[in-house]
Amino acid sequence: MNVENLTNLLENVKNGEVEVADALQSLRSLPFEDLGFSKVDHHRQLRTGYPEVIFCEGKTESHIAQISERILNAGHPLLATRATPEMYDAVKNINSNAQYNELGRTITVRQSESDGIPGILIISAGTSDLPVAEEAADTALMMGCAPERLYDVGVAGLHRLLSNHEKFLNARVIVVIAGMEGALPSVVGGLVDCPVIAVPTSVGYGASFGGLAALLGMLNSCASGVTVVNIDNGFGAGYSAALINRLSNK
Amino acid sequence: MNVENLTNLLENVKNGEVEVADALQSLRSLPFEDLGFSKVDHHRQLRTGYPEVIFCEGKTESHIAQISERILNAGHPLLATRATPEMYDAVKNINSNAQYNELGRTITVRQSESDGIPGILIISAGTSDLPVAEEAADTALMMGCAPERLYDVGVAGLHRLLSNHEKFLNARVIVVIAGMEGALPSVVGGLVDCPVIAVPTSVGYGASFGGLAALLGMLNSCASGVTVVNIDNGFGAGYSAALINRLSNK
Amino acid sequence: MNVENLTNLLENVKNGEVEVADALQSLRSLPFEDLGFSKVDHHRQLRTGYPEVIFCEGKTESHIAQISERILNAGHPLLATRATPEMYDAVKNINSNAQYNELGRTITVRQSESDGIPGILIISAGTSDLPVAEEAADTALMMGCAPERLYDVGVAGLHRLLSNHEKFLNARVIVVIAGMEGALPSVVGGLVDCPVIAVPTSVGYGASFGGLAALLGMLNSCASGVTVVNIDNGFGAGYSAALINRLSNK
Amino acid sequence: MNVENLTNLLENVKNGEVEVADALQSLRSLPFEDLGFSKVDHHRQLRTGYPEVIFCEGKTESHIAQISERILNAGHPLLATRATPEMYDAVKNINSNAQYNELGRTITVRQSESDGIPGILIISAGTSDLPVAEEAADTALMMGCAPERLYDVGVAGLHRLLSNHEKFLNARVIVVIAGMEGALPSVVGGLVDCPVIAVPTSVGYGASFGGLAALLGMLNSCASGVTVVNIDNGFGAGYSAALINRLSNK
Amino acid sequence: MNVENLTNLLENVKNGEVEVADALQSLRSLPFEDLGFSKVDHHRQLRTGYPEVIFCEGKTESHIAQISERILNAGHPLLATRATPEMYDAVKNINSNAQYNELGRTITVRQSESDGIPGILIISAGTSDLPVAEEAADTALMMGCAPERLYDVGVAGLHRLLSNHEKFLNARVIVVIAGMEGALPSVVGGLVDCPVIAVPTSVGYGASFGGLAALLGMLNSCASGVTVVNIDNGFGAGYSAALINRLSNK
Amino acid sequence: MNVENLTNLLENVKNGEVEVADALQSLRSLPFEDLGFSKVDHHRQLRTGYPEVIFCEGKTESHIAQISERILNAGHPLLATRATPEMYDAVKNINSNAQYNELGRTITVRQSESDGIPGILIISAGTSDLPVAEEAADTALMMGCAPERLYDVGVAGLHRLLSNHEKFLNARVIVVIAGMEGALPSVVGGLVDCPVIAVPTSVGYGASFGGLAALLGMLNSCASGVTVVNIDNGFGAGYSAALINRLSNK
Amino acid sequence: MNVENLTNLLENVKNGEVEVADALQSLRSLPFEDLGFSKVDHHRQLRTGYPEVIFCEGKTESHIAQISERILNAGHPLLATRATPEMYDAVKNINSNAQYNELGRTITVRQSESDGIPGILIISAGTSDLPVAEEAADTALMMGCAPERLYDVGVAGLHRLLSNHEKFLNARVIVVIAGMEGALPSVVGGLVDCPVIAVPTSVGYGASFGGLAALLGMLNSCASGVTVVNIDNGFGAGYSAALINRLSNK
Amino acid sequence: MNVENLTNLLENVKNGEVEVADALQSLRSLPFEDLGFSKVDHHRQLRTGYPEVIFCEGKTESHIAQISERILNAGHPLLATRATPEMYDAVKNINSNAQYNELGRTITVRQSESDGIPGILIISAGTSDLPVAEEAADTALMMGCAPERLYDVGVAGLHRLLSNHEKFLNARVIVVIAGMEGALPSVVGGLVDCPVIAVPTSVGYGASFGGLAALLGMLNSCASGVTVVNIDNGFGAGYSAALINRLSNK
Repeated sequence: MNVENLTNLLENVKNGEVEVADALQSLRSLPFEDLGFSKVDHHRQLRTGYPEVIFCEGKTESHIAQISERILNAGHPLLATRATPEMYDAVKNINSNAQYNELGRTITVRQSESDGIPGILIISAGTSDLPVAEEAADTALMMGCAPERLYDVGVAGLHRLLSNHEKFLNARVIVVIAGMEGALPSVVGGLVDCPVIAVPTSVGYGASFGGLAALLGMLNSCASGVTVVNIDNGFGAGYSAALINRLSNK
Repeated sequence: MNVENLTNLLENVKNGEVEVADALQSLRSLPFEDLGFSKVDHHRQLRTGYPEVIFCEGKTESHIAQISERILNAGHPLLATRATPEMYDAVKNINSNAQYNELGRTITVRQSESDGIPGILIISAGTSDLPVAEEAADTALMMGCAPERLYDVGVAGLHRLLSNHEKFLNARVIVVIAGMEGALPSVVGGLVDCPVIAVPTSVGYGASFGGLAALLGMLNSCASGVTVVNIDNGFGAGYSAALINRLSNK
Repeated sequence: MNVENLTNLLENVKNGEVEVADALQSLRSLPFEDLGFSKVDHHRQLRTGYPEVIFCEGKTESHIAQISERILNAGHPLLATRATPEMYDAVKNINSNAQYNELGRTITVRQSESDGIPGILIISAGTSDLPVAEEAADTALMMGCAPERLYDVGVAGLHRLLSNHEKFLNARVIVVIAGMEGALPSVVGGLVDCPVIAVPTSVGYGASFGGLAALLGMLNSCASGVTVVNIDNGFGAGYSAALINRLSNK
Repeated sequence: MNVENLTNLLENVKNGEVEVADALQSLRSLPFEDLGFSKVDHHRQLRTGYPEVIFCEGKTESHIAQISERILNAGHPLLATRATPEMYDAVKNINSNAQYNELGRTITVRQSESDGIPGILIISAGTSDLPVAEEAADTALMMGCAPERLYDVGVAGLHRLLSNHEKFLNARVIVVIAGMEGALPSVVGGLVDCPVIAVPTSVGYGASFGGLAALLGMLNSCASGVTVVNIDNGFGAGYSAALINRLSNK
Repeated sequence: MNVENLTNLLENVKNGEVEVADALQSLRSLPFEDLGFSKVDHHRQLRTGYPEVIFCEGKTESHIAQISERILNAGHPLLATRATPEMYDAVKNINSNAQYNELGRTITVRQSESDGIPGILIISAGTSDLPVAEEAADTALMMGCAPERLYDVGVAGLHRLLSNHEKFLNARVIVVIAGMEGALPSVVGGLVDCPVIAVPTSVGYGASFGGLAALLGMLNSCASGVTVVNIDNGFGAGYSAALINRLSNK
Repeated sequence: MNVENLTNLLENVKNGEVEVADALQSLRSLPFEDLGFSKVDHHRQLRTGYPEVIFCEGKTESHIAQISERILNAGHPLLATRATPEMYDAVKNINSNAQYNELGRTITVRQSESDGIPGILIISAGTSDLPVAEEAADTALMMGCAPERLYDVGVAGLHRLLSNHEKFLNARVIVVIAGMEGALPSVVGGLVDCPVIAVPTSVGYGASFGGLAALLGMLNSCASGVTVVNIDNGFGAGYSAALINRLSNK
Repeated sequence: MNVENLTNLLENVKNGEVEVADALQSLRSLPFEDLGFSKVDHHRQLRTGYPEVIFCEGKTESHIAQISERILNAGHPLLATRATPEMYDAVKNINSNAQYNELGRTITVRQSESDGIPGILIISAGTSDLPVAEEAADTALMMGCAPERLYDVGVAGLHRLLSNHEKFLNARVIVVIAGMEGALPSVVGGLVDCPVIAVPTSVGYGASFGGLAALLGMLNSCASGVTVVNIDNGFGAGYSAALINRLSNK
Repeated sequence: MNVENLTNLLENVKNGEVEVADALQSLRSLPFEDLGFSKVDHHRQLRTGYPEVIFCEGKTESHIAQISERILNAGHPLLATRATPEMYDAVKNINSNAQYNELGRTITVRQSESDGIPGILIISAGTSDLPVAEEAADTALMMGCAPERLYDVGVAGLHRLLSNHEKFLNARVIVVIAGMEGALPSVVGGLVDCPVIAVPTSVGYGASFGGLAALLGMLNSCASGVTVVNIDNGFGAGYSAALINRLSNK
């Protein structure tokens, strides 16, 4: 319902092709579908460049299946995050093309198979950070990108990171995932000339306070060009990285 | 000291043009200048795309002047943040072209006067957020961008924001600055298809806890595509926005 | 035991109709019923306008059944919150009219079937906030109001909210329920001229810290006319909303 | 710019009395006045029932004077909170009727002298809570109410509170202000049948943590019907109380 | 090993009745029994007036049984707190007189059946606080006191508390147990002339943060004469109350 | 207005010596004096065993002088805590016997010169804790006790503490004051058989967080018989200690 | 890849024995083994004096077994911490010499049986701290030290600690492990002339906040010479202690 | 007053050379000097290897001068930390050899001029960390060590750190000082085989929360061999480093 549509609508009112009452109604009803427990936002792709994504935590399998159906019926690709295997089964009943990433806990249905745009590099500090990294990777993939992965290169063994320096030079945007003290984004940020998106994870114990230590560390990074998302929010990092990576085509 | 330089160096060692001991020394001494109290990092522009920036808090006026001199002597543009008028006077003695933004508390010396790249939109929620907004704007400016400003459009009067909707559609990256509950990035993020960088400010009182409320709000944004920087970190937001905005030319 | 009663009592003491010792006893014993483990406060309706409500968490099924019995025997309506299905079974054995709201986890027995007073609007940001919203709705219902519901209208898709603008204009008091960053009350508060009661929920993850982010966001709302209750406290919000809504009849 | 206006506008487009381009412009430009550093929201009274209020902290005296002028020119009453005597002087130059409440730190200009609506009772626990109490009282006064005050009746001397019991019975809404452990709203809430708005203050030391102890106490009140505003937010409490108190005339 | 013992020992060294090496050993070995995993402190009764008490959380049933055996063998009364029924079974195998308080989760074996010293009053705010109250009561009982109980008298129904005013006048020390906002100790403390020991409980939800709200409330009590113990620490409150109550016999 | 008074009043009503209206008034007006900004609680001594104490922080000199005058006119001893020298001057104008303790920041006027009751020992860990210790000592003194002092005996030099062991044996109640890690109460508590009141101080830096570290340490003390007051609350500790110490005479 | 290796490499480039491209490759590839999900850092022993240690939490049994195999194949000793019995079984299948410490939850395979270096003393405050103490002891053992243990000597019974004073005098470095208020390191630190490493444990309840109270206490220790590791981090303490203890042989 | 002294004392008691009463007195009075406000601990050097150090914050100039005098009279070296220039003047009056380090805020008087033991390396991340670094260096110097300094080598410019790699190899213990995200100790810890003592500083803003971010980062370091001291505690780090460095001579 952008400026162009609005102009058309008003022209039609002027021409008498649309009644005032109907125009009023149109101005009120933007396109979403009301399931009672949920209002599926079909307008989102038009507005933000990507359709609604399902965050599965706290939703029932039945709800997830119903929302998935509406999204797929509208011809949109499906991305559901934080999904259990049981939720996957429920969606699979709706659409047999649904795929499940066990590590990243995502359910996906792609609507096109074109090659993704290269330029995103996803780095994780430790093996325990992989679920978050995979969630980020799947999100970027669904948004039309072809992310590269570089895992287990934490700062306690810098040579593992530095030996992959060439990958940094080719990246257009880097997602850096780390728990514990969350120092990796600062080190990476000091080596590259592209934006870095830092993801703190809840990996750690004691005074890591569920990822708070890593979060604060990343927010206070002494390297420039680092922005941060919520703890364990691989989806958000992958999403922002894809928005940035797609900019060059805009 | 990138791969190309290293290859040259090794070729020269092979040719006998460079002695082993000298090569060893070169491999050790990457280019920084040691002032005793500070090591000015002249290599930074080569590595990260922008020279060293001076964060003035906690530094003496004399230190700031000395570091500024080295940066300017190296032919780099100067950006100093969180600067007092007294610090500005000290730098002005070194270089009469230095300019001071009272609101944004930045000292700048530009090395070229070319037009900036458009595409950055800087939005602030309230009048009290202006110092942070201006710091972000000046940073983007120094990095070769031409940021547009949209101030005092907080969520308590949504119409002020929505009436500027067209500006959103033209932006390639948006910096959103807000204190108190920090809700503005969520609202903006739900309306646009480009990356949003959220900056919490320490504006507020009581349970805002110096910006913590806004910070947590932004980290938990229900809109996709929002990343966050430290409280009051206008510099960091402007820096990341410029990195993103320059990507299209890469 | 208000001023009028006290005057009567003293008159009777003067007339000799009441002995001093008895009057002393009356002045001491205000009406509550002592079950040993609990003192059921029958005086509450007289004092605060609504009888005792049972908060079920941390109580045994047997205790809940006993307290329910005393409340019902006194002719009061029954409202029990945070109830499990097992607790419902225990109460159903006492009174076969008891009803259970699975989503809202409330047990209720109404004592009259009169129509409720309209004027309360209950808004929730997401599907996961429904249990809290239903608790608020049932509480308002039991207190003689007829709340209207508007669910899944979070700020990331503003049009879903704005398309229901007419409902705002008819409301006398609005309950707004949201997790994550808790921005919805600020947006609603900026659009209406009636009091808004904000309920933060524990929906979210990572730096939402069990609802703390939403709570702080709501306390720092930049919109005027917003007050806040405890995290997930649907009961408290429904209760206060009903007190406000009933004022016009006072 | 409500439904009625919109219908009129569309009718006029249909009649040809308004051009499409002009209508488009009207739909975009809702009424606010842009001062550059601030966008004064003249539409607010229409939308929320009360014009814009100036929160003075973090604003310059010049800014406050300019915003005041616009508000007064629009025929609105003026309320500025957290104002210093110097700010008052700046406003007094604009309008000689401006008044200053030293204790409550408010600047006010009334536009009518009609009697206020009775029904609001403002209770404070201690002498140090008076500035917050006075801010609440002035806010309610400016919104057309006639608040009653009851000060220094903290729970450590319950008889001071109970001896004023009659005032409770007459109140339609009560604002309770307390620092330290913030217990007073629970005690009051258990005695009355009207809504209670609790205001934690930063009065206290050590583990009061700037009012956090009182805030948490009030949010966890065991009395029903208590809602809470931010620490020291007398304005917010007075504002909500007035909205509630005016409901009976709606 | 007090001053008297030390004097005797030195006299004996002088007399030659004790060898230097033996005296040295005595000075080193104060009386505790080493079980490897635990050093049972038999000297504690002499030093602090009460034998070692077993805190069961985090200990195995076997460890608890072994430590219990040593304590009983030394002729001391047994008190074990935070005990599960399984732990009780393990102790019962050691000593068939062991008793278990299901509500208070204590295991006890008394060594004398004399009447306890009256003077301790234990007050709880709600039904859910009973486990903590019973732990306090059992602790006081084992230390030779006869505590009186007054349960479910929270501040939301003040009359339940005030109707028991006479019990306050007879108390020599009062333990007040409350969760949620923890206001009860302030109200009680303002009514009595004896020391009050406040126990915050973890009863509550949301912003009670596991009892933190009640803890902070009690530490900031505006009533004089209130001291505080750890969250849910019924044992500590009962212990201190007994120390105080026994003072009169000292 | 205790039970005896109430009985008399009722007898007089019965006898006709007191009119009903007058009795009603008496039952309402418990004895406090209303200064407008403050309600001086003359009934407090009757109820809690000690008259009102003035906490000076946040009060004006004029207010303090007026409240002091009412307290002294009623024949009560005067204790004002957290007082500045200027406040002392204001009180000295009212009563030339007023004394000022510079270290403890107390203003006092005694009404009798009888010897205090011995039995209170006040221990401080370091030199910086002395202001809090002196506040505690003066409070105990004013309440009729003769506290003994033992200063600068922190746990890093245990021998300073242990060499004063005899003082422990004579104490009936011990106040232990410490900042930093707050370990001293645990060590003392393990050595004595009387109640220990622990006072955390804000002495420390960095992760002491204004006394929070000491406060948490004391609340988690592994020694039994330790209760805690607010950070820097020497008054509260001295008050409770005096209540305990006076018990033997009850 | 230290200075000596680098010199050799460069000499070989000069001699023509190594091609430039190969040298470039060598400079990039430091020795680690890439398992895809993990990069095993075989260079670590050379660099930090001890091979990679496996932190088992959050890893699958299969992953642990694979990493263990690579470490053992490289001839390194194996240390895996926070291991479950199931993880031990998986490793035992790889190497039948693997041993499991049930209390300390470590899996170990030693590569030499030489006697350890004495000098480390491990002290724990309570029985519940043993798992952390045993993890520290096993770590020190694997690093070639022979730690001595002193358990259950908390500050509430100082004599248990002081009777072992001789062990302090022989220690070269002391690890002190405590939960609750964490006071033990301060007391030990005040008695010895060697470095003390403090380990806070999560033992406690209520306001211990999962070990935070002990952590803050230790960081604020008034004794000099105390450093701190993360909550429950027995491994880190044992590791640092071994590094210190081995210094004398350096 | 070690075992040897105790044996001698007892022998003398046996021989009759020392009376029992005198021995008793000796056993009680360990050597400290009581100034009333302070107990100067002359025994500390014997016990912990270094005499008492004065922490100046919160002490008066007169107190500092008096304590300094006692320490110097006992022939001990003087170290006073957190000293102002005024405090220095007060000490200089006592002893003209006193020296003041303006950056590190220490007052020192050495008692010998022997060369210090090399082996300590002090690294700081940024220019603003210098005061803490200098405090650490002076402390190590006073304890007989010759610390080497390496300043301004933060992780955002890794080459500045890596170019000084040789200094790491020579160090026996490294103190690493950093504010903001505190990542430097992790990077250093992964490169060296000696113990690392990490010092978080309060350098930073916003979500650094006065050094909390750096503190948490260091406690959660993924590198082994890192221990941590309090925020800004340069003294503690220097002290522990010296204890470790002196071990080789033990």
